[in-house]
Amino acid sequence: MPLKGIIPPLVTPLLDDQHLDLPSLEKLVNHLLKGGVHGLFILGTTGECTSLSYAIRKEMIDSVCRLVNGRVPVLVGITDTAPEESIVLTDYSKECGAAAVVAAPPYYFGLSQPEMVTYFEKLADRLCLPLFLYNMPSHTKTMIAVDTVEKLAKHPNIVGFKDSSANASYFNALLYSFRNQPEFSLFVGPEEMMASAVLMGAHGGVSGGANMFPKLYVSLYEAAKSNQMDEVLSLQEKVMEVSAKIYSVGTYGSSYLKGLKAALSVLGLCENYLAGPHSAFETDQVEVIRQNLKSIQGL
Amino acid sequence: MPLKGIIPPLVTPLLDDQHLDLPSLEKLVNHLLKGGVHGLFILGTTGECTSLSYAIRKEMIDSVCRLVNGRVPVLVGITDTAPEESIVLTDYSKECGAAAVVAAPPYYFGLSQPEMVTYFEKLADRLCLPLFLYNMPSHTKTMIAVDTVEKLAKHPNIVGFKDSSANASYFNALLYSFRNQPEFSLFVGPEEMMASAVLMGAHGGVSGGANMFPKLYVSLYEAAKSNQMDEVLSLQEKVMEVSAKIYSVGTYGSSYLKGLKAALSVLGLCENYLAGPHSAFETDQVEVIRQNLKSIQGL
Amino acid sequence: MPLKGIIPPLVTPLLDDQHLDLPSLEKLVNHLLKGGVHGLFILGTTGECTSLSYAIRKEMIDSVCRLVNGRVPVLVGITDTAPEESIVLTDYSKECGAAAVVAAPPYYFGLSQPEMVTYFEKLADRLCLPLFLYNMPSHTKTMIAVDTVEKLAKHPNIVGFKDSSANASYFNALLYSFRNQPEFSLFVGPEEMMASAVLMGAHGGVSGGANMFPKLYVSLYEAAKSNQMDEVLSLQEKVMEVSAKIYSVGTYGSSYLKGLKAALSVLGLCENYLAGPHSAFETDQVEVIRQNLKSIQGL
Amino acid sequence: MPLKGIIPPLVTPLLDDQHLDLPSLEKLVNHLLKGGVHGLFILGTTGECTSLSYAIRKEMIDSVCRLVNGRVPVLVGITDTAPEESIVLTDYSKECGAAAVVAAPPYYFGLSQPEMVTYFEKLADRLCLPLFLYNMPSHTKTMIAVDTVEKLAKHPNIVGFKDSSANASYFNALLYSFRNQPEFSLFVGPEEMMASAVLMGAHGGVSGGANMFPKLYVSLYEAAKSNQMDEVLSLQEKVMEVSAKIYSVGTYGSSYLKGLKAALSVLGLCENYLAGPHSAFETDQVEVIRQNLKSIQGL
Repeated sequence: MPLKGIIPPLVTPLLDDQHLDLPSLEKLVNHLLKGGVHGLFILGTTGECTSLSYAIRKEMIDSVCRLVNGRVPVLVGITDTAPEESIVLTDYSKECGAAAVVAAPPYYFGLSQPEMVTYFEKLADRLCLPLFLYNMPSHTKTMIAVDTVEKLAKHPNIVGFKDSSANASYFNALLYSFRNQPEFSLFVGPEEMMASAVLMGAHGGVSGGANMFPKLYVSLYEAAKSNQMDEVLSLQEKVMEVSAKIYSVGTYGSSYLKGLKAALSVLGLCENYLAGPHSAFETDQVEVIRQNLKSIQGL
Repeated sequence: MPLKGIIPPLVTPLLDDQHLDLPSLEKLVNHLLKGGVHGLFILGTTGECTSLSYAIRKEMIDSVCRLVNGRVPVLVGITDTAPEESIVLTDYSKECGAAAVVAAPPYYFGLSQPEMVTYFEKLADRLCLPLFLYNMPSHTKTMIAVDTVEKLAKHPNIVGFKDSSANASYFNALLYSFRNQPEFSLFVGPEEMMASAVLMGAHGGVSGGANMFPKLYVSLYEAAKSNQMDEVLSLQEKVMEVSAKIYSVGTYGSSYLKGLKAALSVLGLCENYLAGPHSAFETDQVEVIRQNLKSIQGL
Repeated sequence: MPLKGIIPPLVTPLLDDQHLDLPSLEKLVNHLLKGGVHGLFILGTTGECTSLSYAIRKEMIDSVCRLVNGRVPVLVGITDTAPEESIVLTDYSKECGAAAVVAAPPYYFGLSQPEMVTYFEKLADRLCLPLFLYNMPSHTKTMIAVDTVEKLAKHPNIVGFKDSSANASYFNALLYSFRNQPEFSLFVGPEEMMASAVLMGAHGGVSGGANMFPKLYVSLYEAAKSNQMDEVLSLQEKVMEVSAKIYSVGTYGSSYLKGLKAALSVLGLCENYLAGPHSAFETDQVEVIRQNLKSIQGL
Repeated sequence: MPLKGIIPPLVTPLLDDQHLDLPSLEKLVNHLLKGGVHGLFILGTTGECTSLSYAIRKEMIDSVCRLVNGRVPVLVGITDTAPEESIVLTDYSKECGAAAVVAAPPYYFGLSQPEMVTYFEKLADRLCLPLFLYNMPSHTKTMIAVDTVEKLAKHPNIVGFKDSSANASYFNALLYSFRNQPEFSLFVGPEEMMASAVLMGAHGGVSGGANMFPKLYVSLYEAAKSNQMDEVLSLQEKVMEVSAKIYSVGTYGSSYLKGLKAALSVLGLCENYLAGPHSAFETDQVEVIRQNLKSIQGL
């Protein structure tokens, strides 16, 4: 600690809504670790966490921890509307050997900022693993305000923050607030802004595209960290190409998830299956993804 | 079927986040049935469904069905982000003797209207109890469009609709759409508009205030159903007084829930405890609720 | 005062963005007055107010006041982001003989509730005509809170309120708040809920459909006011038919405006022209409107 | 063309709602030009455009063009809900010698993306000056989609884009889309992300803080443009300090505008007056701004 680098949000490979695809999971984990990622974040938004039964969530925690076997830290998403369930998952994660847990605000009842402070403090008190806060307004419909993060960072069990708002003014305000607390990890979600966030001081990125191309994101992180601007701009173009060609097919709210799993299936890394309420791309759109993958230069 | 009348969303009486308050639950259920309600809806928004562990949800289903013992139909909220968990709860509800289940759209990932049609059709296919759709945009952040309801109403297992949007143009559009399908139940959530909705043709209301004053809401329903406008306006004023004095203390997003449970504690019907992430009113605000309760004339 | 009944939001008949269609305006005004409307509201949302140049707005004020010639009160929309322009239009309205003005909150910069109180108080201080507040959250993106209306109603120059939120809980809260101040006019915008609002105590409706069928809306208002429920339900069905068949063609945000002007052109009451940024329906969709108009029984 | 560098959104110095403060305007313009800014953008959001009467808008256009006297390009905000008024202001701007105009989408009626394409194409056809598109979702409540910008960029009269969304994923998608069209200017609004946007390829920033400290923003732009990362991080910290200490006093939606004008008054650059519907900070808060200004190191 503090965590740094590329900690991809692992997809959850599924055979159907009831069954994890364990062989694909093994393939994926090894693919990512070989690519040099600095940690794994499971059961996040990309991991379709909220769509999975608790049985599959536990199987995922257990399996990934076993497969990773201590090579990198494993972070587990425990975002829930019922605090009791978050705690059960954390206890289980600790048993399995996870390094930390990650929680966004409850997403059914909205909380005011003071209520959010109380909620996370009470939760952190009861967790047996360090907690990363997770700002994900497009799904929770609420921002964690900068001064809420400042207050919560004083809790000994709250060790970092992942921001998926894509709001660079907000993220830079956090970097400024924590400029003298380098041990508090600040990670950025959207891969399209990972490089610029790292240039400005972020600890790293939770880049979904690293499920497909871990080396690309690790290299971009390294280039940004060492201020090699030519390399940054050249790799950034590839990252944007992935974003434009894989995550933007169709006009679904879930184009990112659909595109990512379709691409992973084309790459032979997992089945093209999304947990309900989502549906995977049909054959035609998988074909578009296949052609787009081919057209991405040099990947 | 079709269901009609006042089907209150039962609060969930709790000792703490881990323990249901069974004696209060028995008191409450008897209080409501004695008040003449036509059914009970458990594990809805008022029942703090999404805040409860699945263990407590099951205990609630089992206990209420046992306490009601067939006197009125019991409807069970199964709203979830993971379809598998909705199905498990439905199976359990059927075993316990519930009459139907109620589901809002998933509330983490947003769905487009066509995706919503697919989601609810697939879900209804797998449910062993009839399904009520539940429109709750303030918490799910999405409306179920009128023509989505029309499409879904063709599914043999989808038998009704509860609307908590408070949008009277929308609700009247539904009444118009279903004017020739009186067997499809249309219920309105917000009690402030229950009377006018019933006047215009709604089957009934899911009125939270009936936890406190079941007879008031049943009488208002009966008055509206039989077009006794003087009685309607007189009772409506009391309903609005409850809304203004019990649900509007403080400026919390959860003022309704906090006020309702505080009032129920003053009335001796359950503890003043809200499941996390919410907190109950403190002593001062409970005192305000106590005074406001007294000032509501003739209750 | 207080105003009561049906005060339609008059459409603005245009030849193009620079020219008012005066012959149609005369036809329209006479058509509405013959239909028994109790007033006219010009330069509202239905009047495409914000899309019109100030020159056309003034021509509209002058022309309508002249055509109406005191037969019913004329209300003028002065909603603006620049208070100075609201004041200029009010001065002009008074000169022309208008009875009152109507203003929604500024719609570029959002105001908090206390800022809204200050804004409207300062504005009302400077207006030479009585002011109706106008709640129009779908376009201004802000609600005027119930207690903001209560505060503002104390201003001697603020005499009423028009609510276009379609939120019946909110509107009923207003009716309850002002139950002892019958001189403060409460009007409802969406015609789909006009009847139920009047049943519950509203002073009247600002029903757009009255541009086409003034008698229908006047009759529904009268039926609701005198609690003739059979008549209410029968006329309500026609109003909902208009809503379903004229305002819901296509999936435009402006389907209401496009449909209304297309229908008026079919009825020979004005040109099928919408001011920029909107475009009128093309021939195909006008044909749909024509067929739908025919199919509305008994109109 | 293409424009590059720091083009501050000039505040509008006012004596009251009816009178421009011409001596302050002269002071301000000279202060900014002396600071090395590359252009001036008047009548933008920071310029309180929508709050000003058209008379004052014209006086502002005329005065600034005269004061600048060709030393840098002047861009004029013509954002309006009525296209006719945008055109009148553009004609006037051309007469006065402005270089280009800037327009956000209409902000009363919301437009779909295809309607936005039509709207801007029709508008650009009629404008006698080149047009910059302006994405300002916090006030217009709509995003201009990336492919809408791509379509509109083909219009010969649309020459650039200013983005005030603060969404770095979106802005980076634009940089990627236009990577082979360097003549299409891409500017970023929020100064907190100006440096990272320029590092990634933006043409420049429309930084409000440059009203106070033009050299700071010009230096940061130059440092970013030439990849001097140490200098970037050092100046970025000052920019964030301005943001934290000047724009974040109180919890107003307009804290930025209130803080900026209060700070300019402390610096002797203009009166502490905001056009309605806004109010300026009171004495106490101006004092806070004064102390905060002092505490910003080295400014």
